[in-house]
Amino acid sequence: MYLVKVYVTYKESILDPKGEAVNDALHRLGYTNVQSVELGKYFELKLAAGSRPVEAQVDEMCDRLLANVNMETYRYEITELEAL
Amino acid sequence: MYLVKVYVTYKESILDPKGEAVNDALHRLGYTNVQSVELGKYFELKLAAGSRPVEAQVDEMCDRLLANVNMETYRYEITELEAL
Repeated sequence: MYLVKVYVTYKESILDPKGEAVNDALHRLGYTNVQSVELGKYFELKLAAGSRPVEAQVDEMCDRLLANVNMETYRYEITELEAL
Repeated sequence: MYLVKVYVTYKESILDPKGEAVNDALHRLGYTNVQSVELGKYFELKLAAGSRPVEAQVDEMCDRLLANVNMETYRYEITELEAL
């Protein structure tokens, strides 16, 4: 069993209005030392070991469903979980 | 300057319908070894060093704005960035 953590964020060139909004809100709350905020999505998947390598599967899942590769990038971490 | 990565996810007891939807979609795409999906938010903040400790500030920002502490939990990682 694997625990996969996937982080999806906008590409550098894409405007992130929600991140901007959070940045402004933090400033209004007095946290004026905040320089920038980027907002992304975070997926935590549990996968049973299959017939294919996990990395290849996760790459494919990101490309086909989890991320909009036109304007988002993703990265992930895979941890093997102990069998109980 | 600090880079802060904040992960906000639902508490265990809270139903995560979006995560369920992603889980179902992955199954339909043929990834039947996916056991569960949790969907959360991911914030990447850049902070200038202020008068207060960063941890205390980030805790407060999460409690006051970034997370709905009634149904979400958060965790974060703080990395000190090299001055350019």
